[in-house]
Amino acid sequence: MKDLPDDSFHVFDTTLRDGAQREGINLTVADKLTIARHLDDFGVGFIEGGWPGANPRDTEFFARARAEIDFKHAQLVAFGATRKAGVQAKDDPQVQALLDSGAPVITLVAKSHDRHVELALRTTLEENLEMVRDTVSHLRAQGRRVFVDCEHFFDGYRANPGYAKQVVSAAHEAGADVVVLCDTNGGMLPAQIDAVVRTVLADTGARLGIHAQDDTGCAVANTLAAVDAGATHVQCTANGYGERVGNANLFPVAAALELKYGRKVLPNGALAEMTRISHAIAEVVNLTPSTHQPYVGLSAFAHKAGLHASAIKVDPDLYQHIDPELVGNTMRMLVSDMAGRASVELKGKELGVDLGGDRELVGRVVERVKERELAGYTYEAADASFELLLREEIEGRPRSYFQVESWRAIVEDRPDGTHANEATVKLWAKGERIVSTAEGNGPVNALDRALRLGLERIYPQLAAMELVDYKVRILEGKHGTESTTRVLVSTADGKGEWSTVGVGGNVIAASWQALDDAYVYGLLRAGVEPQE
Amino acid sequence: MKDLPDDSFHVFDTTLRDGAQREGINLTVADKLTIARHLDDFGVGFIEGGWPGANPRDTEFFARARAEIDFKHAQLVAFGATRKAGVQAKDDPQVQALLDSGAPVITLVAKSHDRHVELALRTTLEENLEMVRDTVSHLRAQGRRVFVDCEHFFDGYRANPGYAKQVVSAAHEAGADVVVLCDTNGGMLPAQIDAVVRTVLADTGARLGIHAQDDTGCAVANTLAAVDAGATHVQCTANGYGERVGNANLFPVAAALELKYGRKVLPNGALAEMTRISHAIAEVVNLTPSTHQPYVGLSAFAHKAGLHASAIKVDPDLYQHIDPELVGNTMRMLVSDMAGRASVELKGKELGVDLGGDRELVGRVVERVKERELAGYTYEAADASFELLLREEIEGRPRSYFQVESWRAIVEDRPDGTHANEATVKLWAKGERIVSTAEGNGPVNALDRALRLGLERIYPQLAAMELVDYKVRILEGKHGTESTTRVLVSTADGKGEWSTVGVGGNVIAASWQALDDAYVYGLLRAGVEPQE
Repeated sequence: MKDLPDDSFHVFDTTLRDGAQREGINLTVADKLTIARHLDDFGVGFIEGGWPGANPRDTEFFARARAEIDFKHAQLVAFGATRKAGVQAKDDPQVQALLDSGAPVITLVAKSHDRHVELALRTTLEENLEMVRDTVSHLRAQGRRVFVDCEHFFDGYRANPGYAKQVVSAAHEAGADVVVLCDTNGGMLPAQIDAVVRTVLADTGARLGIHAQDDTGCAVANTLAAVDAGATHVQCTANGYGERVGNANLFPVAAALELKYGRKVLPNGALAEMTRISHAIAEVVNLTPSTHQPYVGLSAFAHKAGLHASAIKVDPDLYQHIDPELVGNTMRMLVSDMAGRASVELKGKELGVDLGGDRELVGRVVERVKERELAGYTYEAADASFELLLREEIEGRPRSYFQVESWRAIVEDRPDGTHANEATVKLWAKGERIVSTAEGNGPVNALDRALRLGLERIYPQLAAMELVDYKVRILEGKHGTESTTRVLVSTADGKGEWSTVGVGGNVIAASWQALDDAYVYGLLRAGVEPQE
Repeated sequence: MKDLPDDSFHVFDTTLRDGAQREGINLTVADKLTIARHLDDFGVGFIEGGWPGANPRDTEFFARARAEIDFKHAQLVAFGATRKAGVQAKDDPQVQALLDSGAPVITLVAKSHDRHVELALRTTLEENLEMVRDTVSHLRAQGRRVFVDCEHFFDGYRANPGYAKQVVSAAHEAGADVVVLCDTNGGMLPAQIDAVVRTVLADTGARLGIHAQDDTGCAVANTLAAVDAGATHVQCTANGYGERVGNANLFPVAAALELKYGRKVLPNGALAEMTRISHAIAEVVNLTPSTHQPYVGLSAFAHKAGLHASAIKVDPDLYQHIDPELVGNTMRMLVSDMAGRASVELKGKELGVDLGGDRELVGRVVERVKERELAGYTYEAADASFELLLREEIEGRPRSYFQVESWRAIVEDRPDGTHANEATVKLWAKGERIVSTAEGNGPVNALDRALRLGLERIYPQLAAMELVDYKVRILEGKHGTESTTRVLVSTADGKGEWSTVGVGGNVIAASWQALDDAYVYGLLRAGVEPQE
């Protein structure tokens, strides 16, 4: 066996094996290799790559990972089951496949709940113990390090604590380095985990790990409870991906261990990469990163309440449990009608405008925000519209690059079932009257095209801008189609993205407003001088 | 004071106050009233409605909630701050606004962290205690029940435990019924919460509550840790909505208390409505329900692993921590359409159609639903559209009361800033060709009016029908205005309400589909025979 690093405490990642069980995730071998690199960058101690032999994709992953990745921190782990009942471990092809993977570490899943042994495995309790002993010994004899996952440990312990502990001891005595207590159904709460882990540790003397699922919403806390009780190996998945609700989320677990427990589990500098790595892995698995994930979500350090904003001005630490930069995230101030003067001032600062000195100006902005939010606008999700409003108050008039005379959108459903969407805009820019018509796949798209078509000759900067997101919300749900409509538009120019808001009696009018703001802001960003 | 129910243990909901601090949530008064009804149906003991006086929308909410809602379970709570430094509580207009709200219970937020008192409140530690005493006593003298939220309690306790406890005692001795320890910055872990709550309970003798934020991913566990330590009031928000990462999630907290602790906190039958209520509230705030939320997420009881699937066939309890029906959710097998078939059969039964005998028909319906849901339809929230689909499969053809030849909608923004919305529909009904044009306050409203205008002469039953709700969601957020649009419409006829869905490349086309279904279903409901 090769020399092991000091790993008296492990962070063991199983994103590629258990995380891949999440509904909606379907990983290619290339995806798995990319995720493995991100996890190694983050600095976890072990990366469980899959079940070689059971799944051809996983077999290929191990072959390619060995050839293509030079792991800086992590060791690669193959996952598999103890041998089948009634055969020798050395004769079981699934066990051989684990050795063939070349992984230096092997995690074996073993049954530890008596009912599962009898009903799912359909063997005797004694044979199950023998399966654990035989498989662990065999793999150890082949020079591999072995961890044993005791599946359904906590439910099994409740049903038959004596047998559950026998499985732990069998694994331990046969040479397993860590015996992992798994809350496979995820039904446990922290106080229960704490009590069971303490007892099992005292009664068996085995080195223990924890594998928690999030079905009670307590997977992170359950993991930490096991650590409090003496577990020294924690199994997690990036972003908490996993079967059903998911697994213990690697990021809040690692952050709690490093920042709250003061226990170093990551290489220097890795924690500050956490937000980036979390989002990068979400991209690979093709899921939108959760905006509300602890530590790494876009909203994790976003402040909305006015009460908070006034205190943050005095000292940001008063309203943050950690400095967001420690985990590579940033503080954001949201402007909303709940916010007062302090958040407007902070927001101004964020936008590079110092409003501190002008109480009357700040008061005016607060009033306008309140009034407009009452009418249905929302500025917390429309930074660019807020900045335009702010500048209008500072400069005494709105930014103006063009004047709209009128516009028209037509949607037509034709007898053959196709749709025609046509829009015309009439506007003035730099003294010139422009009439422009375009078609689109919807009325808003047609308006967007007509507007650009008309203006691009005068403002070529518009060519780089693109609508990247569009959201509609109907306000005051009780008036049917007579409601107020709010539209949020995100626009990008290759260098950045900005959001604008429009409100109106109908979706087209609201969209138009948001588009108008989007292009005015885009031209402002591009440094274009407004018209006189 | 009126007689109180036995509320020796409270579930206190603050979705409408603290939950509304979530980025992206902007509630109208109508939204708040709807959510309050859902929370009351769920059976929470207290509903904190907002901060009357600080926010005109909240002031209006309290006035309307008193007039319009007959609460079955919950008591309404107004939230506000202790009086300002240097004035009497009876002379503080913000305190008076709390009384004016008419709420029988008032939650006062008080500072309990010495640094916050000095830096944010800019007063002395003694004056802060006096502010607590004076405000609580004044409200008690006016016959209100008072809870006190000790803001930043846990951080304050770490900095100056003596002072933090003095604030608790001041509130308790002045007559506050519950003193709530708030982890405002959300940085705590369960073991820490447990230790502090135990000590404060022993040292002050006050009845304690807990308010946890989810910044470490432990809000549910922190709430339960406080309960373990003796807290008897838990503050939560629906779906965990709240500032930054969010608050302790009402649903897993209530489920843990009822199912894991055996502590009855909800009325009979309410827990089985939990999934529906969670999703309904998400609809009101216009956020997609989290598919991976514990207990109530679409994936919460979805099984993917082959290992699990085979065991579930033997005994579902082997792989589920609870029976999903206890919380109104269902088990789903992702590898087969078994769950799909079962729910279609159940749904049929719900609609009075027994499909049990016809496996082939059920299979066809499951396939169509899958295919349409892949295209963006959702039948969960559109019962009427689902029933039309079901009847079409049973009857071999769609219900038909009219054939649409074509339609057209025009939106025009005029130089004077007003809008014209005009729609024309061309259709056939009972052998007659009808061309009808109408104006509206938006293109969908104009289409709706044109359709009714054309058809009412032939189907006078349409006159009783009215659009009562209209929701738009843009699917596939990454294509800007080229996304797919889903529209949900609710229609009422004075006897009941039904919901229909439409999907299309643009909002007008999607709305038209939903309107079409809405009127076909309305005529079906009214017992009108379809055309030959």
